[in-house]
Amino acid sequence: MGKDKQQSASDSVSLRNLRLPEDLKTLNYTQCGELCAEIRRMLIDTVLRTGGHLASNLGVVELTLALHRNFRSPYDRIVWDVGHQAYVHKLLTGRGSAFDTLRQEGGISGFPKPAESPHDTFVTGHSSTAVSAAFGIAEAFRMQGKPNYAVAVVGDGAMTGGMFYEGLNNAGKTKSNLIVILNDNEQAISKNVGAIAKYLNRIRSSTGYVKAKWSVERVVGKTPVIGDQLVRGLKNTKDRMRRNLVQTTIFEDMGFVYLGPVDGHDLAQLDEVLEVAKSYRRPVVVHVRTVKGKGYAPAEDNPGEYHGVPRVSQKNGISRIHLDEKNPEVSIDECYSTVFGNALTEFAKEDKRICAVTAAMKYGTGLQFFYAAHPERFFDVGIAEQHAVTFCAALASMGMLPVFAVYSTFLQRSFDQIIHDAAIAQTHLVLGVDRAGVVGEDGETHQGLFDVPMLTAIPGIKIYSPASYACLTECLKTALFHDKGVVAIRYPRGRQPEGVTLPDSLTLTHIPGGKTLVITYGRIAAEAMKARAMLLEEGIESGMLCLTTIFPLSEEIFSAAAQYDNVIMLEEGSAEGGIGEKIGAGLLARGWQGGFVCRAAEGFVRQATVERCLLRIGLTAPQIAELIKRTEQHDAT
Amino acid sequence: MGKDKQQSASDSVSLRNLRLPEDLKTLNYTQCGELCAEIRRMLIDTVLRTGGHLASNLGVVELTLALHRNFRSPYDRIVWDVGHQAYVHKLLTGRGSAFDTLRQEGGISGFPKPAESPHDTFVTGHSSTAVSAAFGIAEAFRMQGKPNYAVAVVGDGAMTGGMFYEGLNNAGKTKSNLIVILNDNEQAISKNVGAIAKYLNRIRSSTGYVKAKWSVERVVGKTPVIGDQLVRGLKNTKDRMRRNLVQTTIFEDMGFVYLGPVDGHDLAQLDEVLEVAKSYRRPVVVHVRTVKGKGYAPAEDNPGEYHGVPRVSQKNGISRIHLDEKNPEVSIDECYSTVFGNALTEFAKEDKRICAVTAAMKYGTGLQFFYAAHPERFFDVGIAEQHAVTFCAALASMGMLPVFAVYSTFLQRSFDQIIHDAAIAQTHLVLGVDRAGVVGEDGETHQGLFDVPMLTAIPGIKIYSPASYACLTECLKTALFHDKGVVAIRYPRGRQPEGVTLPDSLTLTHIPGGKTLVITYGRIAAEAMKARAMLLEEGIESGMLCLTTIFPLSEEIFSAAAQYDNVIMLEEGSAEGGIGEKIGAGLLARGWQGGFVCRAAEGFVRQATVERCLLRIGLTAPQIAELIKRTEQHDAT
Repeated sequence: MGKDKQQSASDSVSLRNLRLPEDLKTLNYTQCGELCAEIRRMLIDTVLRTGGHLASNLGVVELTLALHRNFRSPYDRIVWDVGHQAYVHKLLTGRGSAFDTLRQEGGISGFPKPAESPHDTFVTGHSSTAVSAAFGIAEAFRMQGKPNYAVAVVGDGAMTGGMFYEGLNNAGKTKSNLIVILNDNEQAISKNVGAIAKYLNRIRSSTGYVKAKWSVERVVGKTPVIGDQLVRGLKNTKDRMRRNLVQTTIFEDMGFVYLGPVDGHDLAQLDEVLEVAKSYRRPVVVHVRTVKGKGYAPAEDNPGEYHGVPRVSQKNGISRIHLDEKNPEVSIDECYSTVFGNALTEFAKEDKRICAVTAAMKYGTGLQFFYAAHPERFFDVGIAEQHAVTFCAALASMGMLPVFAVYSTFLQRSFDQIIHDAAIAQTHLVLGVDRAGVVGEDGETHQGLFDVPMLTAIPGIKIYSPASYACLTECLKTALFHDKGVVAIRYPRGRQPEGVTLPDSLTLTHIPGGKTLVITYGRIAAEAMKARAMLLEEGIESGMLCLTTIFPLSEEIFSAAAQYDNVIMLEEGSAEGGIGEKIGAGLLARGWQGGFVCRAAEGFVRQATVERCLLRIGLTAPQIAELIKRTEQHDAT
Repeated sequence: MGKDKQQSASDSVSLRNLRLPEDLKTLNYTQCGELCAEIRRMLIDTVLRTGGHLASNLGVVELTLALHRNFRSPYDRIVWDVGHQAYVHKLLTGRGSAFDTLRQEGGISGFPKPAESPHDTFVTGHSSTAVSAAFGIAEAFRMQGKPNYAVAVVGDGAMTGGMFYEGLNNAGKTKSNLIVILNDNEQAISKNVGAIAKYLNRIRSSTGYVKAKWSVERVVGKTPVIGDQLVRGLKNTKDRMRRNLVQTTIFEDMGFVYLGPVDGHDLAQLDEVLEVAKSYRRPVVVHVRTVKGKGYAPAEDNPGEYHGVPRVSQKNGISRIHLDEKNPEVSIDECYSTVFGNALTEFAKEDKRICAVTAAMKYGTGLQFFYAAHPERFFDVGIAEQHAVTFCAALASMGMLPVFAVYSTFLQRSFDQIIHDAAIAQTHLVLGVDRAGVVGEDGETHQGLFDVPMLTAIPGIKIYSPASYACLTECLKTALFHDKGVVAIRYPRGRQPEGVTLPDSLTLTHIPGGKTLVITYGRIAAEAMKARAMLLEEGIESGMLCLTTIFPLSEEIFSAAAQYDNVIMLEEGSAEGGIGEKIGAGLLARGWQGGFVCRAAEGFVRQATVERCLLRIGLTAPQIAELIKRTEQHDAT
């Protein structure tokens, strides 16, 4: 592909009058520039309204356009690591007209979703998976005898996650048509951490090195390429020469060809480097430098603030509650996360053993306060949940008191480490399981539904699920200073419910009444209390059992239930493996006889507001009241 | 430390007459050589009798001795990655007299165990955790103001696991007293795979490079060191010079000082390099080359064969059944693993979509047959269970039929990837969950107790637990060609039970009788059948429900149970989150009233033979018969 594309499109282009993505290959650079401007306007307009990821998408406008000009999606397959930066890809693959439904119920997902488009080749949402996925795609192409390319677009932050290296190690030295685009915006989510960030900075800033490498490629890039053995021989010779002249990068050590860095906002450079990359027909890393928030001054100045943008139209005027896991720089409003972070900071003033650990979510988990007060005991380990748990267990083995604050969905990566590195030795550490339950607009990949089945399987664990801020603080205090072994405290995204008295016992709170007992915990306690109040107005009494210590099960749960004809279990989490199953089996084993109903999440929960997600599961106060009435009626018949 | 140590010990030394590990520092090299010979004799004598890891321990005799001469355990802390190579460490820290109880019930563990000795600083068993653990220890030392060292001993195979890089990234560029010993035996377990293996080979074989680097360190090593700012300044200058002269290694890219490679069987070289490493007081990697099986000709010639050694005294003469996960080169006898591997190989002849994936367990999982027949569709991805699942999901997204054969205990690392990368998109892949249930002598770190709670939480999954070889093959066929989404087939370590008719229905097998129904699955079906036969001889009838499809629960389970007064659930796995809880809750929700008892593993299961492990849980035929009788008696009163 030369400097200028065939200019078949009209002078003025727009997403609306192009066949996408095919026509992108025909645009000249002037038209490309117009299109990029249009895309930036759409991103800003839409995301400020719907919420979502702004800065990261503004940063990849030219890169995404270049990918669709140089590859033939979906014949070639592009995998977006994490996937929050795939909005431009969605616009360029024909989803512009539906783009205003972004992240809304029934609308376009904020992440790649194969069910939404053949151009979304693979589910992403969690970090560092794209090399593994793209390599699998590339190997399938190989086995199927197809010459197509698999492309992984990976941010620099993802290089702190171990899976990235597992993928590199497996793919390196193969003959796969795999191209890894390293989208290096020097930011990751907030400030990148660890040795890799410094390493990338070194290869970025080493300009002599860059020019030497890139000039070799430019020479090569000008010659005809694909299938030309002679040219490939030449390039391999150049490669070897270069390797003797300059240092190798970590990517070359892992068996990849390394190209770059190139300016990710210069389409001509991008076209050229991608052309060269395609010519190798073996694993290549293309190092692309981009500016997060590019083209929107407020976002460019403060990309962290605009990484995840809350909806401006958020009801009751809250515009700063986190809408997703990647919204780091804010969290100044009170919410469960900040209450947890502040309480931990206070406890750590008195007890020098306390350490705080986050996996690249300092702000999201409310640990910015701890960092400010106790930087020498604060650890941001990168997007490395496996390491985080083992690191905490090691701190604990030395008499420290580590607390790992992590979103429920990401804690899934630590299952083995909690068992193997912490629980077997009965190591005392505290897991702050944030965003437990439904999280809303980020959808299936980010809901916190599986922490209860996962954690309850771990021998010796204790799990709290407080309903209020005050109770959360008490749980943390008890977990730190009284409990032993692994202790988890799960709490939801957002704020404490208002207008209802929340149970505050650290064990359980039983409000007796009627023939039906509702058992629940965490955020649903407030809904259950409201349901009870609604029914009382109708003259219907019911019992309420709000658990704070949800595991191990207390015998008091069973003795309370023994007083009732029916038990209704409500859980903001997976029904399979939930507390309800344990209570049901426990009741049966104790000879209890009565009506038993569990209501919890069945399967994955699709994107919508938290309120709508809870409604779909049936966990709102009116639905609970209805369930209680129906149970009692069934009883009467 | 100079060439020769103070010669305070008698001329002839033995483990028996030394204070350990203190006296090791006082030995001269002649005495060290005698001690190494004695250790090798003990290793060979004991391991051939008790089973365990021979070749890897023979390879680290000098290295372990050097570590205990140059560090002060337990004030300095040594973490053994995977830990199967810690036998020499156990001998050198005063456990020689109990060494003949290795891996036996109540005896010394085959892995580091803090409960066993203060010198065993951290639980290990799974790969690639040691850098994370040692860095946590080093950071605790820093916060506690202690000058002590944390040492991680890591094999080259562990470099295929992502956690290793998560640890490096976090530790690199810090000021931690962390020393990572890369024990490079060019083998990993069997032949090492992936780009990293080739990379290590390159830096190993580049002798000029080695000499240049090492000569710099040797000069530095001769000057007084610790706390001497001048010398450290000198070294840093040398470092910078060297960096300009020669290529950097991946370890330097990650912010570590790199020293090596050195000969891991030359104590003088080891003493010297460790002294240099200690002087840096920031993260250092020491690259040590060792020969697996060193000093025992059969093991040196075939280190794979002697990696994990079965007990010679194994009953009924079976000497080649795997005793642990690391025993790769054998598996020629028939067992569940080989039946699975052979069946898969056969199916793959007819269906070119079938691919087989292992995480460094080709022989252990019986996939050597697949590799021999279909090498182009076989993937050994390294010790990278996270990557393995995502890679499989990507193959599946392209219409391939991937099967990932993996031990239950290691599958714990893939929980997030099964949910996020496979299940959300309802990707069709098959998990061969090997070593499900108790595995015996490897103990807590290796039992396969948690796959059922883990997998049943995953929406849309189907799980089989066949009792016989024939049924295993049928399950695999159905999973490949009829099922959708994620399908897991769990099967135990070892052989199909003999002398009993095993149920063969793919769903469930109901043998009616009596008032008590025993429900079970997998290996325990045979024990339950035996128990039933025992009771029939006493004239006691009982019902039997053997499940093969254990999840999702079939309504037939509940209708069968409805015919009985009592249900006894037996599971070879964790009670918490087991199938029993689901059946119990399901029975209650359906209004069933009767006696309900679950028997399954409560907590971790300590090392013993499989038979003894099952006995301790209460899952042998006589115990089951006793339980049935007791339940009926309780019923009668």
